[in-house]
Amino acid sequence: MPEASPIRWHLAHTTWFFETFVLRELQPDYRSPNEQFHYLFNSYYTTLGDPFPRPRRGLLSRPTVAEVWRYRQQVDEAVERELQRLQQDGELQHRSPASRESRAWESLSSVFQTGLQHEQQHQELMLTDIKHAFSCNPLYPTFDPSSARPGQTAAAGNRAAAAGNRGAAAVSDEPWYEDSGGIVSIGHAGEAFAYDNELPRHSVLLQPFRLARTVVTNGQFLEFIEAGGYACSEHWLDAGWQVVQQQKLSGPLYWVHRDGQWLEFTLAGLRPLDLAEPVCHVSFFEADAYARWRGCRLPSEAEWEHVASQWIDEPASYGTFADDRRWHPQALRDVASLQAGDGSPVTTGPRGLFGDVWEWTASPYLGYPGYRPPSGAIGEYNGKFMCNQFVLRGGSVATSRDHLRVTYRNFFPPDARWQFSGIRLAADP
Amino acid sequence: MPEASPIRWHLAHTTWFFETFVLRELQPDYRSPNEQFHYLFNSYYTTLGDPFPRPRRGLLSRPTVAEVWRYRQQVDEAVERELQRLQQDGELQHRSPASRESRAWESLSSVFQTGLQHEQQHQELMLTDIKHAFSCNPLYPTFDPSSARPGQTAAAGNRAAAAGNRGAAAVSDEPWYEDSGGIVSIGHAGEAFAYDNELPRHSVLLQPFRLARTVVTNGQFLEFIEAGGYACSEHWLDAGWQVVQQQKLSGPLYWVHRDGQWLEFTLAGLRPLDLAEPVCHVSFFEADAYARWRGCRLPSEAEWEHVASQWIDEPASYGTFADDRRWHPQALRDVASLQAGDGSPVTTGPRGLFGDVWEWTASPYLGYPGYRPPSGAIGEYNGKFMCNQFVLRGGSVATSRDHLRVTYRNFFPPDARWQFSGIRLAADP
Amino acid sequence: MPEASPIRWHLAHTTWFFETFVLRELQPDYRSPNEQFHYLFNSYYTTLGDPFPRPRRGLLSRPTVAEVWRYRQQVDEAVERELQRLQQDGELQHRSPASRESRAWESLSSVFQTGLQHEQQHQELMLTDIKHAFSCNPLYPTFDPSSARPGQTAAAGNRAAAAGNRGAAAVSDEPWYEDSGGIVSIGHAGEAFAYDNELPRHSVLLQPFRLARTVVTNGQFLEFIEAGGYACSEHWLDAGWQVVQQQKLSGPLYWVHRDGQWLEFTLAGLRPLDLAEPVCHVSFFEADAYARWRGCRLPSEAEWEHVASQWIDEPASYGTFADDRRWHPQALRDVASLQAGDGSPVTTGPRGLFGDVWEWTASPYLGYPGYRPPSGAIGEYNGKFMCNQFVLRGGSVATSRDHLRVTYRNFFPPDARWQFSGIRLAADP
Amino acid sequence: MPEASPIRWHLAHTTWFFETFVLRELQPDYRSPNEQFHYLFNSYYTTLGDPFPRPRRGLLSRPTVAEVWRYRQQVDEAVERELQRLQQDGELQHRSPASRESRAWESLSSVFQTGLQHEQQHQELMLTDIKHAFSCNPLYPTFDPSSARPGQTAAAGNRAAAAGNRGAAAVSDEPWYEDSGGIVSIGHAGEAFAYDNELPRHSVLLQPFRLARTVVTNGQFLEFIEAGGYACSEHWLDAGWQVVQQQKLSGPLYWVHRDGQWLEFTLAGLRPLDLAEPVCHVSFFEADAYARWRGCRLPSEAEWEHVASQWIDEPASYGTFADDRRWHPQALRDVASLQAGDGSPVTTGPRGLFGDVWEWTASPYLGYPGYRPPSGAIGEYNGKFMCNQFVLRGGSVATSRDHLRVTYRNFFPPDARWQFSGIRLAADP
Repeated sequence: MPEASPIRWHLAHTTWFFETFVLRELQPDYRSPNEQFHYLFNSYYTTLGDPFPRPRRGLLSRPTVAEVWRYRQQVDEAVERELQRLQQDGELQHRSPASRESRAWESLSSVFQTGLQHEQQHQELMLTDIKHAFSCNPLYPTFDPSSARPGQTAAAGNRAAAAGNRGAAAVSDEPWYEDSGGIVSIGHAGEAFAYDNELPRHSVLLQPFRLARTVVTNGQFLEFIEAGGYACSEHWLDAGWQVVQQQKLSGPLYWVHRDGQWLEFTLAGLRPLDLAEPVCHVSFFEADAYARWRGCRLPSEAEWEHVASQWIDEPASYGTFADDRRWHPQALRDVASLQAGDGSPVTTGPRGLFGDVWEWTASPYLGYPGYRPPSGAIGEYNGKFMCNQFVLRGGSVATSRDHLRVTYRNFFPPDARWQFSGIRLAADP
Repeated sequence: MPEASPIRWHLAHTTWFFETFVLRELQPDYRSPNEQFHYLFNSYYTTLGDPFPRPRRGLLSRPTVAEVWRYRQQVDEAVERELQRLQQDGELQHRSPASRESRAWESLSSVFQTGLQHEQQHQELMLTDIKHAFSCNPLYPTFDPSSARPGQTAAAGNRAAAAGNRGAAAVSDEPWYEDSGGIVSIGHAGEAFAYDNELPRHSVLLQPFRLARTVVTNGQFLEFIEAGGYACSEHWLDAGWQVVQQQKLSGPLYWVHRDGQWLEFTLAGLRPLDLAEPVCHVSFFEADAYARWRGCRLPSEAEWEHVASQWIDEPASYGTFADDRRWHPQALRDVASLQAGDGSPVTTGPRGLFGDVWEWTASPYLGYPGYRPPSGAIGEYNGKFMCNQFVLRGGSVATSRDHLRVTYRNFFPPDARWQFSGIRLAADP
Repeated sequence: MPEASPIRWHLAHTTWFFETFVLRELQPDYRSPNEQFHYLFNSYYTTLGDPFPRPRRGLLSRPTVAEVWRYRQQVDEAVERELQRLQQDGELQHRSPASRESRAWESLSSVFQTGLQHEQQHQELMLTDIKHAFSCNPLYPTFDPSSARPGQTAAAGNRAAAAGNRGAAAVSDEPWYEDSGGIVSIGHAGEAFAYDNELPRHSVLLQPFRLARTVVTNGQFLEFIEAGGYACSEHWLDAGWQVVQQQKLSGPLYWVHRDGQWLEFTLAGLRPLDLAEPVCHVSFFEADAYARWRGCRLPSEAEWEHVASQWIDEPASYGTFADDRRWHPQALRDVASLQAGDGSPVTTGPRGLFGDVWEWTASPYLGYPGYRPPSGAIGEYNGKFMCNQFVLRGGSVATSRDHLRVTYRNFFPPDARWQFSGIRLAADP
Repeated sequence: MPEASPIRWHLAHTTWFFETFVLRELQPDYRSPNEQFHYLFNSYYTTLGDPFPRPRRGLLSRPTVAEVWRYRQQVDEAVERELQRLQQDGELQHRSPASRESRAWESLSSVFQTGLQHEQQHQELMLTDIKHAFSCNPLYPTFDPSSARPGQTAAAGNRAAAAGNRGAAAVSDEPWYEDSGGIVSIGHAGEAFAYDNELPRHSVLLQPFRLARTVVTNGQFLEFIEAGGYACSEHWLDAGWQVVQQQKLSGPLYWVHRDGQWLEFTLAGLRPLDLAEPVCHVSFFEADAYARWRGCRLPSEAEWEHVASQWIDEPASYGTFADDRRWHPQALRDVASLQAGDGSPVTTGPRGLFGDVWEWTASPYLGYPGYRPPSGAIGEYNGKFMCNQFVLRGGSVATSRDHLRVTYRNFFPPDARWQFSGIRLAADP
């Protein structure tokens, strides 16, 4: 897949970021361990020179993985030395606040934050890229066998799936969360780190709307397939229908239909489809067609953020993250087990807004009113892509928990499927 | 160009619309003069069967143009007979309001309106498709010599251009129209015809903003070119920069640089570029890059419609339409000549909002809140394309004046350039 | 189809040839009626400047057909005036053989011959290009209804087909013509016109071989299809199998399988497949796969020419040419009716070597030993294409009879199917 | 490059060959260590099921290299056990010649030979595939530093190049070897192993011809470049000129023009171009264009084999092979140093026919008269590709010396450049 990169490239590229934006900035006479890595591991910052073409990254058998690890170590050590030096200078800074070091520290701070966030993003991409590469391999290699569901066997899986399906029905008794809309504020506020695309915080006028309490399950999505969803153009956007036909799609990425049974490829290998798990690896087009077929729609990102910001302290709003090392969204029956002792629902809000699967919104990825990209190479990071992409919210099982914010905007083209992307429905009242 | 169609196809397709949605609906036993035209001249209504592939339309040397005219005449006559019959039945209807004919008349009415609007759209496309086809021909054929500017010769053109450039500067003395924003309403209201995508009328919250009083001229856009605008990635969206490089763009479609002079191909042939005319045949990407380079942005469609609806009765808001048969946007010095006798500006609002050039907005083409496409084939008309397209507003020199409304939403992919599309800047205060 | 051109282009291009190589050569101050035609109607002579791209020829709606006819008339008249002048000068020439006019006449003579041959080639291409364009049209337009088989109706066609099949069986009682090989001469000799690629005449060593007495019929080819020929890779060259899969081929071009019946599109319209007619519009790949499936092979061009040159005076060696205006190869029962009165076969040689269908040979198109292309633009005519093409021999129903020679080498890429190309088998004894 | 494969794939595929054609044949109940390797490491034998697509081989990060080595070891051991068993059975065979083992041994013998030859071919491809992969890497990694020319430094290289150029001139004093042609025999004879495409031995009629005594050097090819060879269509076949333009070619693969100096990437890294070395990594198109520009042509494979078979015992006919582990063709001055003590030339025949570079011939790759591919999967090996490829002769610096025969036919498409392919000219007397 042209969008994916080999792991060694991710490892070197995230180090390249610190080398380029920290070491080269602080040390005018900085000499890289290997000047050509500057070219090889640049990604898209065209203001820093033409990057090495992404689809050819797979060809780079050199530097070896060992050489990349050495490069990481060298840069890490140099960055740490620089930090110590700045820290010492910083102590001086209190006596001389306008010193050169003081200003350097200030401007570095946000670069550092960006570099760390950037590395977390690539950690997520490493998981999704490995999953895709392994999925192309008829051997269906297992990335992490320990992440398999406990006690999971094929037979158990089928039983669990049937049970899960019932479970999913149980938790969807009152499927909609109601919101009365109005003028609400979205976007990042405060001093903590956020990407430029989460700024500025601004007001939005919302009509009253409904948001589904849970994300769509495999079992629910399977009903769409069995009703001929992939064979009928009327559910689909024109551009989506073209993708369905050109790529001969008949289900989510990684679903395998074999001998009359549905299987799913996961980072724990190929295994029976669990009907109670959230559907994932669907494109915006699939999410939109599914919603249309159900007579619903996808939420706007303002609707999503407005609701999510109200339930941010509710434990039931959280599913699984990368920190849990389970590498696959968890069945909703598990969430249901969060029920209080008396059987009452644990929350009156939506469940699992954060984690498990990125939730496609109906919102094209655009700058917020008054948005201006930062100048320079860092400015290429987000604003350049505000065209023909759609926003996803909420993070996934491959996202680091402390990487996410309620204002966090992920974005991908509408046909992208290799992220852990799922569906939460919305509707007009 | 895969998007364009031959003229004979436009002629037959607009007739096919009436045959399919009027005659076949009213006459259960309707027999077409040629059943295969049903397949050939369907455009995208996939619920009516697979259409004949658009890029292959150019191959259809049969039916001949004469046969297509005969087909038009046959269908037109049948439709008129049907209208007369319904009119007579309609007189009965007053006595029997619930009659079958009464209901038929009602449902037909909107189909008829759609059919007529549909034909006007194709009239515009015929002009832009002819222009594109002629532009591929090194002979640069002239479509309508009578539409050339009066007294226009090459030498005069250059003088006029220089003068025009001064003129353009003159009218932009106070370039911005200010609006304080707030909660405003956009979208169509009332009983008159409108496309489904203009519905429902709804409220939008606008921040204060500025809208340019005039559209961008060739002279202004030339400054972007001469400043290296097409050679510098930083002004462009990533997707736009890819188009610039792949298609080796260096100026608007139809601009020709020859022997150190800029020429422009028009429906009156190839002629010197007039610097005072509105720039046209630019893509969304070009409009966006130009705006970014000027430190501005494109208006949202809500901003545009909110302003335009306030100046709808002002004569200076109107430029040239297809009714004027001039086939090219007119120089702003002509608009400036609308100045009142005492030299005071004719309007305190923006000039030329309607006509001359379609104005790209920053708004992706989406359904309005609460939008639901009509069911059936007519429903495929607009809603299917709400993805990866951008809205244009205001009509062009190729649009029929009575086809346009202030709520009218045109839409094209961001790289489309063969429509008469131009730029009006916006900015934050 | 990128290889095909519109009729108006053929008309203008053949005139362009005379304008470029006759008028411009003889008249140093020649002024074309339209200088840009020089660019538009050049085909591939890159030494004369970049030609207008072939796939875009279909876009040229100007010059109109009427303008092209006027151009033809103007050039024809100028050429005729030039010929008369040369003829008069030629009378002087007997008194002064080394005169400039004498030399001009001599060099012109071969250009003239080439121009006339070139026009005949384009006459053939006009037929095959019209056939292809009409075949893309679901109306299946009829080019020449008078060319339909006499008394042909659908029912009669089926009967004829069945009878034809028997007929075909009858004439193939002794299917092989035997040749003992040896050192033979092929290539053109003598003063008459021939293309450069037929030169020089040279010796070739042939092993003993067999050549089929008749070309393969539709009925015989249908057996290949029904035996799963298009579904089994083992009969095919690797490159051919890729074409079969990419283009989803299941039979010759223009065969249509509808409601359980095989039809064939011809220049007289769509009609039932006649099993006794020669199979045509097959590619080299199909011819080769068919031969392999039969346990045979295709003849080399040396084998073909050696046999054909021995039977050049035999009437039964000739089928239908363009002069017969029938536009489709004729059923072999017609050839069989050439039987002598006593029922003895009309010939002991192969039947129908010339006309009806071009016969694919196993020979890649290469220069003969000692071949050197002529210098200049004319030299680009044949030699440039001696790569990845295969030779066909014998002319077709679309070839002018006096265009063909026994040494004539036609050539097309191995996947080309839109010529009237068929199959004659060969084998080792 | 879609034609290249990763090294681990080569390693596994050559083992797969023995597993498939030896172990599975001999042991009806054979169980592979991993059944899916059968799919992964099949190359093109479509009769054994659809192979894993070649361009996706690079995606296979599993099995790991270690797993592939284990697979090789397992299969090698199983094959050796089988050989011992057969050998023991073979001793019985003398007493019972018609035994099942006897027949198995016989049929196995040719499979074994094929498997070993097949592995040698892949050893050559591993070198050329590694070279290509490394060349895509801006780091220009070195495969084998020990293979660099002795004492080679940049400065020394330039001096050597200049000297070499003179040396090259010296040995080309009498550049042509003359042959009188006639009826000659080519193709393999005798009991020793040969590929099916070298059979049957047969007679060919040759005109008198000249063959260059040496292959073309870098210095000679540079003259073609400097004379504008890559900018002038007239030297090129039409298909070759298209490749030049599409791929913007300006010299052989691996030549790098930097700061006014020509460098060449080799398996010993990037280094100054040595003008005395044979030009290599040119396509058929480049070889043909060069020959045309020199007023010469390429030899036919019959001409080449006829000459080579006469000089097979002459030491000067041999250059460098893989056995020499030098990985780059050697400068002709080295060959010149083979001169006899008295300064007389070491040979009156052509030099370096075998080894150093594969020599493109003018011959399309076809079956010899009477050629029939073997049946079954082995039969797919050669015959399937007899279309649009050209024959190369003589082996290269990457070929094992005992892999080559004077009748050996290598073949590649005319645009292939990543093999060690060079040029030897021929001409008519």
